[in-house]
Amino acid sequence: MLPIDGNRLNARLEAFAAIGATAKGGVNRQALTEGDRGARRLLAELALARGFEVFQDPMANLFIRREGRDVTLPPLLIGSHLDSQPAGGRFDGALGTLAAFEVLESLEDAGRATECAVVVVSWMNEEGCRFSPGCMGSMAFAGGEIPQAWHGKVATDGAGFGEELALTLASLPEAVMVPLGFPVHAYLEVHIEQGPSLEAAGIPIGVVKGIQGTRWLDVTVTGQTAHAGTTGLSWRRDPLHALTAALSGLYGAVMPDDPDARFTIGRISAEPGSVNAIPEEVRCTVDMRHPDPQRLDEIEELTRSRIGQEAERQGCLVQISRSFDMPPCVFPEALQKAIGQAARDCKVESVPMLSGAFHDALFVNRVAPAAMIFVPCRDGLSHNEAEYVEPSDVVTGCNVLAQATLAIAATAGTKAGP
Amino acid sequence: MLPIDGNRLNARLEAFAAIGATAKGGVNRQALTEGDRGARRLLAELALARGFEVFQDPMANLFIRREGRDVTLPPLLIGSHLDSQPAGGRFDGALGTLAAFEVLESLEDAGRATECAVVVVSWMNEEGCRFSPGCMGSMAFAGGEIPQAWHGKVATDGAGFGEELALTLASLPEAVMVPLGFPVHAYLEVHIEQGPSLEAAGIPIGVVKGIQGTRWLDVTVTGQTAHAGTTGLSWRRDPLHALTAALSGLYGAVMPDDPDARFTIGRISAEPGSVNAIPEEVRCTVDMRHPDPQRLDEIEELTRSRIGQEAERQGCLVQISRSFDMPPCVFPEALQKAIGQAARDCKVESVPMLSGAFHDALFVNRVAPAAMIFVPCRDGLSHNEAEYVEPSDVVTGCNVLAQATLAIAATAGTKAGP
Repeated sequence: MLPIDGNRLNARLEAFAAIGATAKGGVNRQALTEGDRGARRLLAELALARGFEVFQDPMANLFIRREGRDVTLPPLLIGSHLDSQPAGGRFDGALGTLAAFEVLESLEDAGRATECAVVVVSWMNEEGCRFSPGCMGSMAFAGGEIPQAWHGKVATDGAGFGEELALTLASLPEAVMVPLGFPVHAYLEVHIEQGPSLEAAGIPIGVVKGIQGTRWLDVTVTGQTAHAGTTGLSWRRDPLHALTAALSGLYGAVMPDDPDARFTIGRISAEPGSVNAIPEEVRCTVDMRHPDPQRLDEIEELTRSRIGQEAERQGCLVQISRSFDMPPCVFPEALQKAIGQAARDCKVESVPMLSGAFHDALFVNRVAPAAMIFVPCRDGLSHNEAEYVEPSDVVTGCNVLAQATLAIAATAGTKAGP
Repeated sequence: MLPIDGNRLNARLEAFAAIGATAKGGVNRQALTEGDRGARRLLAELALARGFEVFQDPMANLFIRREGRDVTLPPLLIGSHLDSQPAGGRFDGALGTLAAFEVLESLEDAGRATECAVVVVSWMNEEGCRFSPGCMGSMAFAGGEIPQAWHGKVATDGAGFGEELALTLASLPEAVMVPLGFPVHAYLEVHIEQGPSLEAAGIPIGVVKGIQGTRWLDVTVTGQTAHAGTTGLSWRRDPLHALTAALSGLYGAVMPDDPDARFTIGRISAEPGSVNAIPEEVRCTVDMRHPDPQRLDEIEELTRSRIGQEAERQGCLVQISRSFDMPPCVFPEALQKAIGQAARDCKVESVPMLSGAFHDALFVNRVAPAAMIFVPCRDGLSHNEAEYVEPSDVVTGCNVLAQATLAIAATAGTKAGP
């Protein structure tokens, strides 16, 4: 067993929450902003103070290495991300990154050697809200290259991706530059559940079996704008009439019929947006999720056909395009078992579960065995300044990570490894 | 019969359409902008060139007077407005204003005296899109004062109402300032129908019986934002689920059950507006119209109860407030008859009809007998750059106005007047 310092970890979470702090107790530390750079700097300084190696790759993924007995073995990677949503919580990402760093410090405090090196990672831009898509850092790490299209991306605040990335890299000259991607023994990530089920069940640890697939649609329904007062029903081609009828039916069908399905409209707007004019055009996004790729296809098909039918009924046209499509992923059983054992070693209950959100682990799992440890968050709230994790749950999550780290690092270099 | 110059009138419409012209053939000449000032200036210059008196009141309502035989009689007012929607058409308002000015010039050309003076008016801010509410000019004229709350209004483009009004008044120093409101013998307004019924019936003149009532609601439904992927159905408090269910039901009930009802959602939005987050709050506007005030009450009640029920079902809260409430108006029969007779004198068919839109005539009707003459517009389109009126219908509308002007001006000073 590797003892960790829970007080140190909770104090660290406080310290990082001060970087980009919002008035309501959350953080706004979107990727590649000054706040994001500040959090990278603080983590790098803490690491250098402990004598760890600090390096970064061309995607501004930040790594902190504690050497293992066999320097030739691929390292065990542990971590998460430090960027946040614009009105985000202080635990989403930071918890996994700082829990991983706590494990590294605890190994150092205890003078415990590991077979392979243990490397803490903070992935760049998991959230994807300032620059889309999310998980850019882990996606590029797994793919071995930066997709050409990303260089020209422009942030919601007008900043250029290439410029912001270069400034971020330059803001940490102490970090040695390494090429993108390297062999990894395994990857472990602690994260808040971002849902209510662990809290509701009173279980402090979720062993994540995999991540459901996510698909996003951009929907545009076009009718004809006309005067609200003078245009009788038979003359109307009202796209919002069509869209609300379709969405109302879909809300009533998709999730009620399938408890594993998720169906969310996060954005909706009408043009020209005048109180006394029938809209010319309405747009919405659709976020669909399911662990079964075939069911995702079926939900997309249902969505397209319902919107198409209602649009036709109102004399409107429809355009629907996919803006994002991520297939479900399944984490290796050996790693799930190791986490379950680590929880038992810590004498805490754990439960296997699916992740509703996607995470960097999904992308790392494409090139190395990956797994995740979930901890409860209050009321299931996340992407919200009110996001909160009990300090005791923070400590439990880190404890399980610590024991799993010891166990999995010990399998490095063996044929029977994870 | 008073002959008018149809070619001059159609050429004038062209000339005014050049002020604030948009790329798609419409106009953007919102109230109190440079374009609006330019249109006022052109009309004033044309009037001064003909020797008419030009004056304005503190609301920037613009008046052009041709004196009558008896200078002590209240004048017959004829006109409309020169401001437009941001992507408006070239006939909405301009037609009625320029047709009225054509009548004044035709009287002058023919050397025809009228019993009372005839005054052309261009009301300020009929559209109400840059500064709300619409019909500010005629509303203040009828009310005899400028509501205190208007002075501090800020435009959608950030400009202050008081400043823009002062600049507009100052931009026409040739116009003599007069106090707000004066006795009026009667008011006549030519306007495009802004609906499809005259065109569909092949009838060039609508004699407007009255204007249906309009009521606007601001609706806010508040739930709880949460992660689209991690939040199962039973944990959701989704305000857009509630709102689309309610609206879908209302679209299917209000207008299908009552051909005189109008029900329009022109604006809808969701906050925070993230593709992968359940909205915290959704807002929409509701525009309800009916000629019967009791039915308006019933439609509002139905709207409130449906939204309330669906919000409760989704665990959401609702706030609904009225942002505008205009009771229906009925124009005096004597004026309707005079317009019907004028159409017969012109040998054109006419039909009595309700106005779906509100107009300055509604407010003037509170202090003087008012009436309106509608002409067809193509496909019923208005508040749209593609708005179009056949030149022959322009001429017919003006002809009917000219004959009605002669007839109604002749009744000035009589007990049996309109």
